[in-house]
Amino acid sequence: MFGADKYPSTALRDAVEAFSSLPGVGSRSALRLALHLLRQPSERIHHFADSLNHLADDVHYCRHCMMVCDGDECDICADRSRDHSTICVVESVRDVMSIEGTAQYFGVYHVLGGVISPLEGIGPSDIAIRELVDRLSRGGVSEVILALRGDVEGDTTSLYIHRQIEKFGVTVTTLARGLGFGDALEYADPLTLGRSITGRQPLKI
Amino acid sequence: MFGADKYPSTALRDAVEAFSSLPGVGSRSALRLALHLLRQPSERIHHFADSLNHLADDVHYCRHCMMVCDGDECDICADRSRDHSTICVVESVRDVMSIEGTAQYFGVYHVLGGVISPLEGIGPSDIAIRELVDRLSRGGVSEVILALRGDVEGDTTSLYIHRQIEKFGVTVTTLARGLGFGDALEYADPLTLGRSITGRQPLKI
Repeated sequence: MFGADKYPSTALRDAVEAFSSLPGVGSRSALRLALHLLRQPSERIHHFADSLNHLADDVHYCRHCMMVCDGDECDICADRSRDHSTICVVESVRDVMSIEGTAQYFGVYHVLGGVISPLEGIGPSDIAIRELVDRLSRGGVSEVILALRGDVEGDTTSLYIHRQIEKFGVTVTTLARGLGFGDALEYADPLTLGRSITGRQPLKI
Repeated sequence: MFGADKYPSTALRDAVEAFSSLPGVGSRSALRLALHLLRQPSERIHHFADSLNHLADDVHYCRHCMMVCDGDECDICADRSRDHSTICVVESVRDVMSIEGTAQYFGVYHVLGGVISPLEGIGPSDIAIRELVDRLSRGGVSEVILALRGDVEGDTTSLYIHRQIEKFGVTVTTLARGLGFGDALEYADPLTLGRSITGRQPLKI
């Protein structure tokens, strides 16, 4: 009676379809999630729905760095104690949260919202490179850290940005690549090990 | 700046908390899902929220079998061509959908909504056993199939139900346990292989 896309209730079907649209959630998991919600008091389900409406309507983006925030400026850009002459360029909001989690960085950020990927149809004008160039043209920046992923798309984006901003004469750096903390040499993949050799550092004692 | 439970936006935090409440979704996955939604047009996020409100308000339960449905009777119970003298007792809505998917069963169902599990504080009165007894007391049923899971809780529930309904004199059966279709003996676990030996069947040619 119920086939692959037939559900005993239209409301259940709609909820399963909504969950299925999320990345990494198949129709079986979506059904499990919808049935889990269905076992909760209806106020909890409404609360879930409210939080999504809130997400759609009340998330803003910082006018300086494109980070998600509550107003028109994020807490980091608004913080005068941070070093506004150093900009760390990242792909996503999650990267900002990861770097903040290290408590090792005290500059500000620039969230691109993606990396250049011709295969996925994402060109330089689809991500916030123009906004970065505008920020640099206003002066006051001494270093740009390109903290993008270590794959072809990330490297392409880094190179492209470097060409766009070299005219400003700021120092352009990138994240160190190499062995992770505690990694054994024998288990490292050859590319990572190779990068850690070519990028070797003076021993600090 | 953002700790384990600090987010750059309150709306983002609320959405992450909502997703984290789902089974199998940790805070990292929840953040990934919320940020994925944030990249969608806001109408799509609202549509997601609407489907959840719809789920909270518009799912009903069949008055006969407790299956989720749109009205007060599910399509299966309303179907006069099905065998209403055979009731298949299952734990959840998903089990009904799985059995319907086999296209091998033509009776009706009874959804318990759980199994007896003293460890989780679920007793006989917390699941729809009373409703099953009421159905049987109205007569017209010749067989009850106990299609519960093959673990301690499932077996306990089957035994309990059997004791409650034996007075009605209906045939009580349970699902066959044994090797799956195409399974090799050498890879079967001893319990399953043991059950398939003790439950051996006459060869049908």
